[in-house]
Amino acid sequence: MSITDMIREHPDVGDDFNPELAKAVKHAMYCAAICNSCADACSAERMDMAACIRKCVDCSDICQAVSRVVARRTDGNVPVIKSLLEACFVACRACAEECERHAHAHCRRCAQMCRECADDCAKALEGMYRASAA
Amino acid sequence: MSITDMIREHPDVGDDFNPELAKAVKHAMYCAAICNSCADACSAERMDMAACIRKCVDCSDICQAVSRVVARRTDGNVPVIKSLLEACFVACRACAEECERHAHAHCRRCAQMCRECADDCAKALEGMYRASAA
Amino acid sequence: MSITDMIREHPDVGDDFNPELAKAVKHAMYCAAICNSCADACSAERMDMAACIRKCVDCSDICQAVSRVVARRTDGNVPVIKSLLEACFVACRACAEECERHAHAHCRRCAQMCRECADDCAKALEGMYRASAA
Amino acid sequence: MSITDMIREHPDVGDDFNPELAKAVKHAMYCAAICNSCADACSAERMDMAACIRKCVDCSDICQAVSRVVARRTDGNVPVIKSLLEACFVACRACAEECERHAHAHCRRCAQMCRECADDCAKALEGMYRASAA
Repeated sequence: MSITDMIREHPDVGDDFNPELAKAVKHAMYCAAICNSCADACSAERMDMAACIRKCVDCSDICQAVSRVVARRTDGNVPVIKSLLEACFVACRACAEECERHAHAHCRRCAQMCRECADDCAKALEGMYRASAA
Repeated sequence: MSITDMIREHPDVGDDFNPELAKAVKHAMYCAAICNSCADACSAERMDMAACIRKCVDCSDICQAVSRVVARRTDGNVPVIKSLLEACFVACRACAEECERHAHAHCRRCAQMCRECADDCAKALEGMYRASAA
Repeated sequence: MSITDMIREHPDVGDDFNPELAKAVKHAMYCAAICNSCADACSAERMDMAACIRKCVDCSDICQAVSRVVARRTDGNVPVIKSLLEACFVACRACAEECERHAHAHCRRCAQMCRECADDCAKALEGMYRASAA
Repeated sequence: MSITDMIREHPDVGDDFNPELAKAVKHAMYCAAICNSCADACSAERMDMAACIRKCVDCSDICQAVSRVVARRTDGNVPVIKSLLEACFVACRACAEECERHAHAHCRRCAQMCRECADDCAKALEGMYRASAA
């Protein structure tokens, strides 16, 4: 089941399809789920993982908002999408930095996902600013 | 990036991994995104899609809760998971029935996703009741 | 700012306003916030609060879905509201039972909120079944 | 039931309590609910409210993330809070501007709530930058 196809089938989306935004939506959806799962696994570890739980749950909540807001195509809301992608970039980087301090397999996987999602947000923003400048 | 692997890496999950629950988590995550996108596309259609928007946004919110709650493995919360999966089954079926009334490509895709997610919830519940009975 | 007034101003709500459902919406909104805050406070306590974090985050996610789904009045989705209120009742009771085991001020406040929200869900359900039977 | 008291009871919050942040949390929680309700009422109006639904659902999703992320006090995540408050300010202003175009009672109430929430985000940000400069 493809989020990308779903966005393409929106009545207002034709030639105007932006693949970088669609990729950011898909990875933010995955990143929200991975961070939610990492926070849960961290709370079950024997050592103190409070700082990591915090970064993961914050990142999960923001990625979830991205996966919903950035997927929409009705009427447009460009300044909102831009500022939310910026917040997501900051949250993903903060979570990756914290998870990279820990050797748990779930933290390593979460850090990798967050790096990828931060990268997607940066590319989507770059594409949006390029379009505004054109 | 795999939600299933993430759940396997939880410190409390070993031989106790339940593949039917993991599948329900993954498809609920997708179904939340597809329903969110279908509601947005419906609001941009020229005809009155109010009933379909309602079923889609309700289903999206409930699937999102499922994708978060059912992914957790710390300490257990079985009765909560069961009743939430039941609510998700009802919401997915209601959304599928409504979307099946419309010819839009996004509605057809959404209906198919909802049928699949309802089926996953039913199988996950069946597995949980089988485990309780064992 | 009142959620109740907001629901009254919906174009389809006239004499059909259900005060018990509106109360459940308002308290589910508060309960989602209180449980989110209690989970965060629990993760900062020195003792092992993993079980309490789990019950709080699950309850928060489900209450949040209730505060969104049950507030809607377009076209109707009664069976979905009923099954979601039941899941919320179960989640609030499970969270209250766990929080009542701890002496932290945030846990006591959270337990009280969860008991109240479970009670609201039960009353709203009773009202809905009474209406179906009438 | 008070979100403010809940934040005060967090083990790491003592003299460090920030009333402007707590106010932003509370109003973002309300704004998420009001925008969710306004979007639902808009979809039931006879005229085309697609643009207003879009602004409301985007604003609701972002306010909801604020009400969760900004309420947390474990370990700190200041740059994330700042960029999320900025996104919330942008989303609330965009939603207020759209809702102010319509005479529906629910749109007027939603516009007022969004103006208030944007103002709270600005004040909370000002306080955070003042604290960084001190």
